Amino acid sequence: MEIFKFMVPEIIFGRGTLKLVGESAKRLGATRIFLVSDEGVLSAGWVDEAVKHLKDIGLEYQVWTEPTENPKDFEIDHGKELYLETGYDAVVGLGGGSAIDAAKAVAILATNGGKIHDYVGVDKIEKPLPPLICVATTAGAAAEVTQFAIIVDSHRKVKMTIGSKSLVPDIAIVDPILLSTKDARLTANTGIDALTHAIEAYVSVAATPVTDVNALKAIGIISTALRASVASRTNIKAKTEMAMASLLAGVAMSNAILGAVHAMAHPLGGLLNLPHGEVNSILLPHVMRYNLIACMDRYADIARALGEKIDGMSTREAAERAVQAVEQLCQDIGAKRRLSEIGLQEEYIPELSKAAAEDVCLITNPRDASVDDIAAIYRAAL
Amino acid sequence: MEIFKFMVPEIIFGRGTLKLVGESAKRLGATRIFLVSDEGVLSAGWVDEAVKHLKDIGLEYQVWTEPTENPKDFEIDHGKELYLETGYDAVVGLGGGSAIDAAKAVAILATNGGKIHDYVGVDKIEKPLPPLICVATTAGAAAEVTQFAIIVDSHRKVKMTIGSKSLVPDIAIVDPILLSTKDARLTANTGIDALTHAIEAYVSVAATPVTDVNALKAIGIISTALRASVASRTNIKAKTEMAMASLLAGVAMSNAILGAVHAMAHPLGGLLNLPHGEVNSILLPHVMRYNLIACMDRYADIARALGEKIDGMSTREAAERAVQAVEQLCQDIGAKRRLSEIGLQEEYIPELSKAAAEDVCLITNPRDASVDDIAAIYRAAL
Ligand SMILES: [Fe+2]
Ligand SMILES: [Fe+2]
Repeated sequence: MEIFKFMVPEIIFGRGTLKLVGESAKRLGATRIFLVSDEGVLSAGWVDEAVKHLKDIGLEYQVWTEPTENPKDFEIDHGKELYLETGYDAVVGLGGGSAIDAAKAVAILATNGGKIHDYVGVDKIEKPLPPLICVATTAGAAAEVTQFAIIVDSHRKVKMTIGSKSLVPDIAIVDPILLSTKDARLTANTGIDALTHAIEAYVSVAATPVTDVNALKAIGIISTALRASVASRTNIKAKTEMAMASLLAGVAMSNAILGAVHAMAHPLGGLLNLPHGEVNSILLPHVMRYNLIACMDRYADIARALGEKIDGMSTREAAERAVQAVEQLCQDIGAKRRLSEIGLQEEYIPELSKAAAEDVCLITNPRDASVDDIAAIYRAAL
Repeated sequence: MEIFKFMVPEIIFGRGTLKLVGESAKRLGATRIFLVSDEGVLSAGWVDEAVKHLKDIGLEYQVWTEPTENPKDFEIDHGKELYLETGYDAVVGLGGGSAIDAAKAVAILATNGGKIHDYVGVDKIEKPLPPLICVATTAGAAAEVTQFAIIVDSHRKVKMTIGSKSLVPDIAIVDPILLSTKDARLTANTGIDALTHAIEAYVSVAATPVTDVNALKAIGIISTALRASVASRTNIKAKTEMAMASLLAGVAMSNAILGAVHAMAHPLGGLLNLPHGEVNSILLPHVMRYNLIACMDRYADIARALGEKIDGMSTREAAERAVQAVEQLCQDIGAKRRLSEIGLQEEYIPELSKAAAEDVCLITNPRDASVDDIAAIYRAAL
C-alpha cells in the first residue's frame, strides 16, 4: 500500500433530509444562496421544496435552472455572471450529476475568475470556493461527494474533467425521497452508473482498503436493490438502498478514481450528448472482459458481492461470473446493448479512441490500453 | 435506517507521511504552529522530526509537551495561555489519544475562550477552531479522525467527554513508521482499543452501512495483524495494517459512537489514571457477553470477521464464538485479565457504576444497562 489521501464531505443521509438544506447553508455562514438546478428537477417540484427551506430560515436566494444534461461551458459563463452580478455568498447544487457539476463549476469561477477551461486537469484551483452544499436527486452520479466536475467544451464537443479537493462539497445531502420522481429508464441508467463507479474503483490501481470496503458494499446493495428500484417508482426501501449504494460508490470512486469505462464514456457522451449512465451500461461488460486478466482475484470478489455462488470455482471462472452477472443485471433492467442503438457510427471511433486514451480516468485502469485497444472495445460494443 | 450524519477529516495515510505535516498546515493558511505532543513522543524523536518539516517550509512554531496520559484540565488551561500569549494561528497534535485530545482541547479554548468544562457534552462549541492537523503515533485511539476529546476533571477525577463536529481535525496524518518506537505492551493496549472501537461501533444502535463496512474491515485486519504487531517491533507490514485498522475503526466509531466498554472505561481510567486500552481489554469480553442477547446476528458477523469458522452453527453459537475469539486474542497478546490486577478495589464499584450509567457512550449501547447491571459487569471483571 502506497501513500494515499482520502476525502469525503460531511454527509447528511436519510428520508426528508432535504429540509436541512437551509440550516446547513446557514451553519456555513451563508446569507445569499445561488441555487443551481435544472428544468427536470424544477418540474418535479424539488426546487420549490428546497426554496421553501431556504426562505423559512431567512436566507435570500436566486434559482438558476439553465444547466442542461452534460452542462456546457457557455452555461457556466452565464451562471458566473449572475452569481457575481448580485453578490451571492454560497452555492447550493440540487440535481443529478449535471446540475451539481454546474454548481461546482460556477463556484470555481465565483472566487477564482476566468473561464472553466482554465481549471481542466488536476489541482488547478487555487482559491477556496464559496460554501458549497450539494443535494442529490438521482442515485448514481454521486457528484455530491466527489472531487470532480465534468463540463462540456461546446466548441470541441468533448467533456472536460476538473479534479480538485476543492470540489468536494462542504456538505452533501442525500434524501431518498427525491428519487421517487424518476422514471424507470433514468433509475436504470443512474443505477448502472453507480455500479460502474463501484467496480472501476474496486479494480483501480489507486484502490485502498478504505475505498475497497465502500466499493464492495455498494456492489452488494446494487445487485439486489437496483432491479427492485427500476421495477417500482414507489418502492422507497429500494430507493433508500440505491441512494446508499450510490453514496458508498461515490466515496470509493472519488478517492480511488475510475477506469476505462469512464475514459471511453466521456468523449462519447460529449460527442453525442448522451445520458452518461446509458453509455456506461453498454460499455461496462466489454471493459470488464478486457480488464479481467489484470485482476482476476478482484473480479472474483465482485462476483461474490454480486451474489454469485463461486465456491469451488477457479479464480478465472469466478471472475468470468462477475462479467456475466453484470450482463444479466443490465438485461434485467432493460439497458440498451449496443452503441449503434444510441447513435454511434463506426467513423467516429478513431477520434473517440484517441480522446479516451488521453482521459485522466485511464491512468487508474488496471490494464494498459492503447488507442487501438480502446478502438477494439468500442467496435465490440458497436 | 434513520437519518444520519457522517463526517471524517481529510486523511493522509502511508509510510513517511509525517513529512507532509508542514505542507498540510500551510495549505490551511497556518503561519505560526502550536505543536502539542507529549514527553514519550518527544523522546522517541518524532517531535524533532515533525519540527524539521515545519521549519523546512518556513513555519514558526512552539513545541508544548506538557500533556500527560489522560490529559488534565489544568494542563489545557496552561496550553491555552501559551497559545494566546504568543498569537499562534494553528494547532498540530502529534501523539496517541492523550496528546491529540489535549491539542483539540487547546484549540477549543483558543477561539471559544473559557474553561474546558464549559464544552462537556454534545455540540457545545460555537466558534470554529483554528486549523487543526493531527498526526497519530499509536494505532488505536484514532483521535485524529474522531469528533471527540476526553479530558480529565482533576478535581472530581472523572473523564469528561466533549463531542462536536468541530473536533474532527481538518487533516489527519497516519504514518505507520511512527508505530515502530512503541513497546509490545503499548502496541497490545492500543490495538485492543481499536478492536473495541470497531466492535462497539458495529453493534451500536447508531450504526449505519457506512460505519458497518469500516468496522467489519477493521475487525478482520486486527484479527491477524495485532498478534504480529505485538510480536515484533520491526514488522512494518503489521504496523501498517494496524494503522489502517485503527483508522477504519475510528471512522466507524466517530460516526456510530461507542457502547458500555467505553462508558465503563472512562470513569475507571479517570479514577485510577490507567492506560485506556488496558482497561478496555479487560472489560471487552465481559461487556460482549452482557450485550450478546441484544444483537446475536451482529456478533455472528463479528465472529466471521475474526476468522472463526461458523458455517453450520446456530446464530447463538456463532455469537458466542465472537466472545471466545476476542478472549483468545487478548490472551495471545498478554493482556491483563482482571481489574484487580490494575488497582480496582470492590469499594469503588458503586461510584464507578453510577458514573458509567451517565456516560454518553452508554446511549448507543445495544442492551440497556442499569447501575446495578454495570456494577455486576465490573464485579465479574474484578
Ligand atoms: Fe459516472
Ligand atoms: Fe477507546
